Amino acid sequence: MAKINTNYRKLAAGYLFPEIGRRTEEFITNNPGTPVMRLGIGNTTEPLTPHVLEGLHKGVDLLSKVETYSGYGDEQGMAQLRELIVDLYSKYSVTLNSQEVFVSDGAKPDAGNIQSIFGIDNVVAVQDPAYPVYVDSNVIAGRTGEHQKESDLYDGIVYMPCNEDNHFFPAVPEQKVDLIYICNPNNPTGYTASKEEIKTFVDYARENKAVIIYDAAYASFIADLELPKSIYEIDGADECAIEINSLSKNVGFTGVRLGWAIVPQKLVVEGTDAGEVNKLWNRRQCTFFNGASNIVQQGGMHAFSAKGLEESVEMVAYYMNNAKIIREGLIDLGFTVYGGVNAPYVWLKTPNNMDSWKFFDKLLIETRVLGTPGSGFGPSGQGFFRLSAFGHKEDVERAVESIKNNLKL
Amino acid sequence: MAKINTNYRKLAAGYLFPEIGRRTEEFITNNPGTPVMRLGIGNTTEPLTPHVLEGLHKGVDLLSKVETYSGYGDEQGMAQLRELIVDLYSKYSVTLNSQEVFVSDGAKPDAGNIQSIFGIDNVVAVQDPAYPVYVDSNVIAGRTGEHQKESDLYDGIVYMPCNEDNHFFPAVPEQKVDLIYICNPNNPTGYTASKEEIKTFVDYARENKAVIIYDAAYASFIADLELPKSIYEIDGADECAIEINSLSKNVGFTGVRLGWAIVPQKLVVEGTDAGEVNKLWNRRQCTFFNGASNIVQQGGMHAFSAKGLEESVEMVAYYMNNAKIIREGLIDLGFTVYGGVNAPYVWLKTPNNMDSWKFFDKLLIETRVLGTPGSGFGPSGQGFFRLSAFGHKEDVERAVESIKNNLKL
Repeated sequence: MAKINTNYRKLAAGYLFPEIGRRTEEFITNNPGTPVMRLGIGNTTEPLTPHVLEGLHKGVDLLSKVETYSGYGDEQGMAQLRELIVDLYSKYSVTLNSQEVFVSDGAKPDAGNIQSIFGIDNVVAVQDPAYPVYVDSNVIAGRTGEHQKESDLYDGIVYMPCNEDNHFFPAVPEQKVDLIYICNPNNPTGYTASKEEIKTFVDYARENKAVIIYDAAYASFIADLELPKSIYEIDGADECAIEINSLSKNVGFTGVRLGWAIVPQKLVVEGTDAGEVNKLWNRRQCTFFNGASNIVQQGGMHAFSAKGLEESVEMVAYYMNNAKIIREGLIDLGFTVYGGVNAPYVWLKTPNNMDSWKFFDKLLIETRVLGTPGSGFGPSGQGFFRLSAFGHKEDVERAVESIKNNLKL
Repeated sequence: MAKINTNYRKLAAGYLFPEIGRRTEEFITNNPGTPVMRLGIGNTTEPLTPHVLEGLHKGVDLLSKVETYSGYGDEQGMAQLRELIVDLYSKYSVTLNSQEVFVSDGAKPDAGNIQSIFGIDNVVAVQDPAYPVYVDSNVIAGRTGEHQKESDLYDGIVYMPCNEDNHFFPAVPEQKVDLIYICNPNNPTGYTASKEEIKTFVDYARENKAVIIYDAAYASFIADLELPKSIYEIDGADECAIEINSLSKNVGFTGVRLGWAIVPQKLVVEGTDAGEVNKLWNRRQCTFFNGASNIVQQGGMHAFSAKGLEESVEMVAYYMNNAKIIREGLIDLGFTVYGGVNAPYVWLKTPNNMDSWKFFDKLLIETRVLGTPGSGFGPSGQGFFRLSAFGHKEDVERAVESIKNNLKL
């Protein structure tokens, strides 16, 4: 008799964003004709830029002729695209070789799948709050115990609270952990760590032979030149860190799907030779993945060209202007607000420590603005709320206006 | 200290196709300027068809305007595409609802990932020979013991030999197994089973509450109207089978990436309610996947339109003509040949039971033709060799000619 993977039953609730979708649908059904302003999911809204579109069309055109048609490509991505990613890192003075770059269909699959090359007995540490995929993928893999309703924590996971006391960047764990997820710039808090802060984790990881899984999906949103865009800007990180990134937010590829992971050849863990972890991820990708779409990869190559990078800077500026509008509007209203400066997320404190989901309902009903409850990212997110800068400027302005006019404080 | 998933060390060798790639590169390096005729990997070679290209360009164009731009879509695929897949099945008199259809980036990821919603203690049965992903994904997940060099078998897996004695379709296992992988039309043997044959497995699965993972990626290549194109043509299969399919071969999407899995709501396994397995796969996809590319899905919708289906029939006919050329050429030479009639693979017996890899080298060196050693698909493939019908007609003709003229028999 076939049996299911019972770890799925440990999962506390539906994945956060489908749950938000469900509640929103319900609201719309009950309030037909009422426009909802979506600052919830970090979903891009602006059209793709000309040079990137040209690359995508070219990708399609190449498939129309027998001379240029291509079928299966390398599971790791096109050689030229991998080289362009190497070039990108060289701008941060990070030296990679293209064998360390694995092109994928996005940061979410990589963030979810990366744990599978590590043993079940590894102890996982996550920032709290955090992007739910880090915890959920480890729950499903069996790396945790049960979920505890009262604390909203899973047994066996080491949570690193990110709160006002530590300005949303945690100290390294006191106990020994093996896999550490760090998202920087942070989703959802919008905090962006300094080199010194990241270095504390690199030092910890090297000392304890732990691995940092570094989600840099929002690195392009960093304006402050002093802040690191890659963990490999910190000495020794190539011995202990895997970096994940994506074109979703800065190029508008949320629906187009392209990302990458860096697995350095120097990375070693217990009992492995140099290069073995890199080879494991390669084997994982060759077995479970068949490469990102060749059309999309052509678009990606255009995105990484000089012209594409310029276009991306403009797109980032557009969304960061939204972040400014949200930030300043909320500050005007007297909210305590974090993030939104080097990251496209604004992290606000709910009024009078209101429950995050209660504030979600209040905001939606009173102002028609859709956000994301902080507690959906982990218990330390309780009493906080995330507003996303991804939206049309006019909608963002309207949303802030609606909050100003309609929210009963 | 972080530890790797040591199951990776059980894997007997590099994944088959990269290994072939490596040997081919070596040959080319040592024999510069010599053209190699590739009938190895089942990789499509013919350009995409006009209506499908139109769909893909439309997919890109939609992203160029603010009114039609879309970001994240549903992890399960676009509603309209799921409906088109439901319609496709209705042509085989199979009734599905769209909640049972999960669009993906291809059959390989689905074939690899599907095991993850089942417990580690399930006993897996595979056809021998078989597409390597079925076994490798279960080895990596920890569902097997060690690989035994002598037998080339993994402990803990139930192998169902497919050989000349059973005309390449196995009897149901004598012992109880939980997950059964069936590929039909079969890769690599090219055998295509009848309804009665498939029914023996459906009956077994229902009796033993086992789950059949049915890989129908080559269903479009079935010409014989009596043969089932979907396992759900067999009564009761919706209680025990998951079906995987793809647009790779019949539409030319090997590099474009689009597939789907059917997880029926009626499917139950030990201790689950109806619908739970369907929900598990949904949760898996929502956690580890972010939907197939929206550009590619537009292409998929065009592929499933009346015009697109017509174009696909032509493409299939093109490759099946190649299969005929290979089949007949080899029969002329006195080879014992299977498959290639309702499937795009020809499965030939090596001369004098020559070792499959030895024949690989012999064929490459003497004739410049690249094929796939049968033993790469499992020990019962030893003494057999796969030639793929995916190639330009002229190249296939040239390859068969070269075998006729240059192979030292």
